[in-house]
Amino acid sequence: MTTIQPLPTLSEQNYIQQLTIDCVIFGYRDRQLSVLVPKLRYKGDFWALPSWFVFQDEDIDEAAQRIIRSRTGIEENYLEQFQVTGKANRNGKAFLDQLIELNSELIGPNATISEGEGLREYEWFTRRFVSIGYYALVDMDRAIPRKSELDQSIEWYDIKQLPPMIMDHNAIVTKALKMLRLTLDQELNVLNLLPETFTMKEVQELYETILNKPFERGNFQKKILSLNGLERLEKKYTGAANKAPYLYRLPKPTFCEVS
Amino acid sequence: MTTIQPLPTLSEQNYIQQLTIDCVIFGYRDRQLSVLVPKLRYKGDFWALPSWFVFQDEDIDEAAQRIIRSRTGIEENYLEQFQVTGKANRNGKAFLDQLIELNSELIGPNATISEGEGLREYEWFTRRFVSIGYYALVDMDRAIPRKSELDQSIEWYDIKQLPPMIMDHNAIVTKALKMLRLTLDQELNVLNLLPETFTMKEVQELYETILNKPFERGNFQKKILSLNGLERLEKKYTGAANKAPYLYRLPKPTFCEVS
Repeated sequence: MTTIQPLPTLSEQNYIQQLTIDCVIFGYRDRQLSVLVPKLRYKGDFWALPSWFVFQDEDIDEAAQRIIRSRTGIEENYLEQFQVTGKANRNGKAFLDQLIELNSELIGPNATISEGEGLREYEWFTRRFVSIGYYALVDMDRAIPRKSELDQSIEWYDIKQLPPMIMDHNAIVTKALKMLRLTLDQELNVLNLLPETFTMKEVQELYETILNKPFERGNFQKKILSLNGLERLEKKYTGAANKAPYLYRLPKPTFCEVS
Repeated sequence: MTTIQPLPTLSEQNYIQQLTIDCVIFGYRDRQLSVLVPKLRYKGDFWALPSWFVFQDEDIDEAAQRIIRSRTGIEENYLEQFQVTGKANRNGKAFLDQLIELNSELIGPNATISEGEGLREYEWFTRRFVSIGYYALVDMDRAIPRKSELDQSIEWYDIKQLPPMIMDHNAIVTKALKMLRLTLDQELNVLNLLPETFTMKEVQELYETILNKPFERGNFQKKILSLNGLERLEKKYTGAANKAPYLYRLPKPTFCEVS
């Protein structure tokens, strides 16, 4: 019988209680916006956003970076805090009850958690949790999805076809997308979703995908260049020199303000 | 000797630990943006934003509303969550040490807190705290500033002349202002700072004050009306009928989404 290491126990008390960081990791390729979603290794088809607790001696931004880094393999990810979810009735009890019901070996005599004692150990996990939401914008070409020891698998899902996730995680993605959209008009950080260099056409396709509407090419280019955040490089080599588009890049990686 | 009721003690454990709500209450009048700031009743000139903890059975938005209501007397205030401050070293220990040093009667034999026991009771209050920031936009004509039992006084301060507050509260105001400014281009919620009805000139003055720059009248009016959020009423009676400006109002009170 394998030793099952389920959720953190009461003895792992180096966390701030009743606080989680929930992360929406966005990726983009070929007119498709995706979200990186792990599936838990337990019976019952549980999908959940990459989430974890905050260590007592850890900044919340660093906690988010740690969680996202562990799933993308990228050391410094572009991230933004986008909301706090703090309903009084928000807790993981229903989810944990269901998980334990479907995975009785977790509380059986041969498993690592003994019945009464084990369940009490998890009581803290079923209390009300306030969730701080962060989204990350990653270059899918650089990200190497990694599962944690709690996961069976981890995959990119088209944002239009996400699996049903635990608790309010689907609603958290919806809010992250809404907040991401709000930034598009005023800043270029969304371009962290693209490879290091890109053409204006690729920028336009990205905007059209995220906002789900077309733009007129001339106006779009004028608007983007007015935001003053792009560095123009040499023309992209296509064989037909006079029609080759310029390549652009963001001047340097930009990261969110540490709060 | 009066009974001094200082900070909440360990026995008041109905709160989520290590989490506070810090509120920036904005008011506006005559081209001046103000913030409502209480001064604590203890010796030592301690100013602090209206702040409190979240009850276990309370939504965070409702906690913010409760804190702001208790200081403005207005039942439903327009409010927005604007940031979470979560540095690992953020705590109130320096502030509380200083307060206790300057107010020795708090730990003296005749006071409510006995020395060793009393101080231990406050230990939880000196731990690291994650702060959720909310700002409120209130009509100064309707708000009646109210001090809490911990306050000596409460006053509106010009945002350009705030007193030095405890911990990082001045920085929290700076961030609130930055986030408020970001909304001005896309929504009209800032008009909750005005009385129920107002002229376009008053709207322009408000915008100019908050953004600290002048606007050209025609373009400004066009921009505001394009946001489609205003109801136009009758003309304001000024005696000179043909030059009287229109009055406007927000269609109904708008409140932030409950998260």
